Amino acid sequence: MSFRMLAIAVAAALLPAAASADEGMWMPSQLPDVAAQLKAAGFQGDPADLADLTQPPMSAVVSLGGCTASFVSPEGLVVTNHHCAYGAIQLNSTPEKNLMKDGFIAATRDQEPSAGPSARVLVTTGFDRITERILADARGKTGRAYYDAIDTASKAAVAECEQEAGYRCRVANMYYGTDFYLIRQLEIKDVRLAYAPPESIGNYGDEIDNFMWPRHTGDFSFYRAYVGKDGKPAAYSKDNVPYQPPAYLEVSTDPVADGDFAMLAGYPGTTYRHRMASEFKQQIEWQLPSRVALYDNLLKTIDKATAGNADAKVLYAAQVAGLKNGLKRAQGELDGLRRSDAIRVRGEDEASMLAWLAKQGDAAATQADIKAVQAVLDQASATRERDQLFAVMRSQTQLLGNALRLQRLAMERGKPDPQRESGYQQRDEALIEASLKQVQRRYDPAVEKALLAELLRQYRALPATQRIAEVDAVFGSDETQARAALDKLYAASKLGTEAERLRLLKAGPEEVKASDDPLMQAAATLMPAVLREETVDKTRDGELLRLRPSYMRALIGYRQSQGRAVYPDANSTLRVSYGNVTGMTPRDGVRYVPLTTVQGIVEKHTGKEPFDAPKALRDAIANGDFGSTADPQLKTQTVNFLTNLDTTGGNSGSPVLDARGRLIGLNFDSNWEAVSASWMFDPRYKRAIHVDMRYLRWLLAKVYPAPHLLKEMNLPAE
Amino acid sequence: MSFRMLAIAVAAALLPAAASADEGMWMPSQLPDVAAQLKAAGFQGDPADLADLTQPPMSAVVSLGGCTASFVSPEGLVVTNHHCAYGAIQLNSTPEKNLMKDGFIAATRDQEPSAGPSARVLVTTGFDRITERILADARGKTGRAYYDAIDTASKAAVAECEQEAGYRCRVANMYYGTDFYLIRQLEIKDVRLAYAPPESIGNYGDEIDNFMWPRHTGDFSFYRAYVGKDGKPAAYSKDNVPYQPPAYLEVSTDPVADGDFAMLAGYPGTTYRHRMASEFKQQIEWQLPSRVALYDNLLKTIDKATAGNADAKVLYAAQVAGLKNGLKRAQGELDGLRRSDAIRVRGEDEASMLAWLAKQGDAAATQADIKAVQAVLDQASATRERDQLFAVMRSQTQLLGNALRLQRLAMERGKPDPQRESGYQQRDEALIEASLKQVQRRYDPAVEKALLAELLRQYRALPATQRIAEVDAVFGSDETQARAALDKLYAASKLGTEAERLRLLKAGPEEVKASDDPLMQAAATLMPAVLREETVDKTRDGELLRLRPSYMRALIGYRQSQGRAVYPDANSTLRVSYGNVTGMTPRDGVRYVPLTTVQGIVEKHTGKEPFDAPKALRDAIANGDFGSTADPQLKTQTVNFLTNLDTTGGNSGSPVLDARGRLIGLNFDSNWEAVSASWMFDPRYKRAIHVDMRYLRWLLAKVYPAPHLLKEMNLPAE
Repeated sequence: MSFRMLAIAVAAALLPAAASADEGMWMPSQLPDVAAQLKAAGFQGDPADLADLTQPPMSAVVSLGGCTASFVSPEGLVVTNHHCAYGAIQLNSTPEKNLMKDGFIAATRDQEPSAGPSARVLVTTGFDRITERILADARGKTGRAYYDAIDTASKAAVAECEQEAGYRCRVANMYYGTDFYLIRQLEIKDVRLAYAPPESIGNYGDEIDNFMWPRHTGDFSFYRAYVGKDGKPAAYSKDNVPYQPPAYLEVSTDPVADGDFAMLAGYPGTTYRHRMASEFKQQIEWQLPSRVALYDNLLKTIDKATAGNADAKVLYAAQVAGLKNGLKRAQGELDGLRRSDAIRVRGEDEASMLAWLAKQGDAAATQADIKAVQAVLDQASATRERDQLFAVMRSQTQLLGNALRLQRLAMERGKPDPQRESGYQQRDEALIEASLKQVQRRYDPAVEKALLAELLRQYRALPATQRIAEVDAVFGSDETQARAALDKLYAASKLGTEAERLRLLKAGPEEVKASDDPLMQAAATLMPAVLREETVDKTRDGELLRLRPSYMRALIGYRQSQGRAVYPDANSTLRVSYGNVTGMTPRDGVRYVPLTTVQGIVEKHTGKEPFDAPKALRDAIANGDFGSTADPQLKTQTVNFLTNLDTTGGNSGSPVLDARGRLIGLNFDSNWEAVSASWMFDPRYKRAIHVDMRYLRWLLAKVYPAPHLLKEMNLPAE
Repeated sequence: MSFRMLAIAVAAALLPAAASADEGMWMPSQLPDVAAQLKAAGFQGDPADLADLTQPPMSAVVSLGGCTASFVSPEGLVVTNHHCAYGAIQLNSTPEKNLMKDGFIAATRDQEPSAGPSARVLVTTGFDRITERILADARGKTGRAYYDAIDTASKAAVAECEQEAGYRCRVANMYYGTDFYLIRQLEIKDVRLAYAPPESIGNYGDEIDNFMWPRHTGDFSFYRAYVGKDGKPAAYSKDNVPYQPPAYLEVSTDPVADGDFAMLAGYPGTTYRHRMASEFKQQIEWQLPSRVALYDNLLKTIDKATAGNADAKVLYAAQVAGLKNGLKRAQGELDGLRRSDAIRVRGEDEASMLAWLAKQGDAAATQADIKAVQAVLDQASATRERDQLFAVMRSQTQLLGNALRLQRLAMERGKPDPQRESGYQQRDEALIEASLKQVQRRYDPAVEKALLAELLRQYRALPATQRIAEVDAVFGSDETQARAALDKLYAASKLGTEAERLRLLKAGPEEVKASDDPLMQAAATLMPAVLREETVDKTRDGELLRLRPSYMRALIGYRQSQGRAVYPDANSTLRVSYGNVTGMTPRDGVRYVPLTTVQGIVEKHTGKEPFDAPKALRDAIANGDFGSTADPQLKTQTVNFLTNLDTTGGNSGSPVLDARGRLIGLNFDSNWEAVSASWMFDPRYKRAIHVDMRYLRWLLAKVYPAPHLLKEMNLPAE
């Protein structure tokens, strides 16, 4: 891959998209380059004004770490989802004053309680390309060395950036190792709760409506960001003052209608859209079906092992819920990718790209790199069944998993903290302690043995080439030996008692190593296999970081030849999506309309959670006094709306803006049909679900009144 | 009620409807009077042409007894639903030649097999008002005597009418005793099967899709009517010839689209739309909730009594399915009536009517009659809980129910056949024998005892005034006595063996009476209570027949004052409904579109019943060769469509006609939201589901070809 091609690639990434106008999680800097599409979709502003995410209006969009939010007043008022503020609402609830159940309105700033010491508002103030710096030392290296060079350079860049107090920095990798950006964020640590509706509004429908349309959820809450009197971030203090943000969004007072332009800014987590065709094929043909089968199997194992044992059922309820959720997600993703014919679509796309590449002058090196990526992936695939089972043996067990954790911690404690493995540094020890303490609430020896017996059964059914010597050493090589080993390990281990686990957490490395607890010894025996796997993974990751950019540049070049731009896969950096308010056809004969109304709340109301709309809300709906927030066409109050905006996990709370950049909604969910969008954006099925700001305004005006907040946002009182 | 008012009433019934143009199961003779509405809805023909149901085109619409069908060729070809012809399809199936599974095409007339000896095609040839004749002898009488006078007059009219061989006659009661019509039908007894699709098309979706939209079912089949060489009805004979119908429908070759005019003719069974407000209230506040609670209770009783007993579960599977279905229907009807706010709507309507009535000159007699109707209804309500429980004790038990049946049959056998109670005449004895034989497949003593114990528990909880002396005599008056009585009855009874039951069926009345089987004796003890209840019922029915016409005339007069006509509640006579092809909004945020396509078949296909679309169909869909049957807008093949036509049970197979009277669809189902339409037509939710004739034509042209039938119907070959 020549340097010339890299230059082409970066330019290509900035080219307009054509084929699928609604797909794309664009870096703001790409927006001027898709100006024609933005305008065609209905945007009325100047796309150039959106290009710098450290300048207004983009600088009004902030991260809460996992969620997105935005400033809506010059005095630090922040709007986000109810589910994003739920921890803070819970923290401030007592049996006497239950904010979750009853909601909360701080009548004055004095009454705004802390959202808790870990709550954050992160304002991005820097976004700089530092590709050369990050890759300088990596060039010429391969594998693990390439990985380590990037890791070291990144850590150095972050450390330098964080020298100024009050900032948090990270390096973001764009286009799978092609580009690196240093992101600098002001870290506001004094976050307070200003308003929350009752959860019977903010979480109306809960798990039943989760991922569903039509939706009727008032999933919003208000925070306020506070800083020290010097304007700099500070821990909670009574003396702190509201933060004056670099920008805030104007809330629209105009209606929202089918077909309207809409755009959304936020911090989407992870997507896999630009993965290779073979990775799509593996995800659909192996990863998702095998996960479905494995989780289904584990659920059956737990069900059988807890039959007639109510106590054990309670202990495993959370694990069962987690497995069920994982199974449902995997099945949803699988169904979606099949529905979208993803193997064929991505396969044909890649084949066209490779045909195009073959005609380019300097294709040979790129072709070789792409082949090398495939070889790395193939190598990983060769042991995928075994690797998955070995990982699950650790993640789905309490005693075995924690024995390994204790052994590993003892090992890492022998190193200087910065060199410790991620997850085993000093700052992680509290989490490890919590994990050791919760065993009592989640463990039954018969169930754990049954789970391991089942996983070992599957492991033994694999070809001999996939065997792990250490696993065989601990559990033997047939059913009888495995049963005997499990019986012996769990009968004699003392790890079932919290005192023993915590003693080992506090103990020195030598003492841990010397433990004669059979499960601790089993963990010690297994440890070399764990470490070996980690090394293999990091070596592969290094190779992929080195080689994938060739694939990405070829893809970008190919798209360029089609007149289309390429956005980087999502990586928790600020992205912008644009599109329209629109319904969808979930299946033949059914049309989802894009706006729901309070009528749906009445229809769904059963009086029982999660459809227990509060009386105040039902009375207000019956009363029909919707004032300035009523929809002029529907003649009633809207609740949620649907767009074709491109979102994924992390976009919760993202502001949805109209053609003039005014706030019209808060993103809070996707539809079930879109679960597969992390891999493939299918414009027929990908939708995002938003709270209509008019519903929020109506609730603040008429139902759970907060006239002071409406005034602060410069909105009509009714 | 003066005679003058009767004249007004009958005229009123012929007046145009205004308020709800899509509601109405009109007698054809009423159609010229709703001509303006028909035209406004889009009808392009002359409404006068539809007025005589014995003349073309209405004479093309025939009854199959329970289902509707229509002639579609001059050679006796009849089209109806697959589910209406299912018995005939089943009858002609063998393990080697499974017509249900594989479908059937008679390539020539020789190959058309008999639909069975009980299959009928009924062509209405007479429809004459005989009110004076029926009521002549009843006038001046009341109660049971009024009932018996009408019954005797009706039987005489029918006997006279049936003197000509080949005809079947009945008297239909319109407007609840206001008018009586003598209906004369040619009874074609040689019916043959000409075409049936595989049930994976004809019943695609089965119970899962039942009552559901969107729908993708090819619910159609073809019969051919045969008569003797003299043109008169005759039993099946090889020498019979195709019947030449008085009329046949032309199948449309034009597209069907949202908003198009549609009308439907058929034989709807029973509706309750013109029942009094108090009856609506009782249905919603007592009958449906009490049925839901009772059935739920019985289901729980069976569940408990069969726990851990797989054999008993199998024995009660059909009864459980029946109770579940009844519960679901009752709940659906209840939900629908509540959704439509039926108590308020019907109550306000009736109050307005009564206010109008009070201003009329001769209101007093009518008001007195209406009060008298209410008194009869109130009297019935006073013992409704007891009556329901007593009825269910008989209908939901095998041994007790059959013991009563045997005792009753012995009693009735002592009378001349025409005077025997309906259900116990000679022609009913085969059915009684079948009922006695099936006990073995549906009975377990522990479960029957549990059911009776539960029903008796509920019975004993009723006020003492509702007690039945005979029930107390058999089962005692407290829990202990009931348990002891049940144990004793079922331990000693020999009715659990088929031989004993059949012996009692063959035995003479005295021998039955003398049986010392404890359950037979219990039945003998209970019999006077059964007979007493029957007498009370018939007396009430007589009074209602006498008095309700006053209510109906008042209603008709009131509607007349609003410029609206009134159709009689459905009673299995030919009715016509008109309206439009239209979608619906089942709930906030969701819109059902009115046309489904073959895409939905592919989406629903799982390969397993009931979504196991045949390969030939799937291949044809994938092939996309829809020829002249493709929808010009959707560019694909439609399957089913939705209208707002007014239908109920009995309308299965009804032809759906376009603005020019051409056949565009076959009615086969309603949507779930419309279950309550038997009581109240709510235009927001009442829809009818039809097979699109274009789907039928495509299947006949391209998938399971029957070019000879297309030619016979004068339709394009592809």
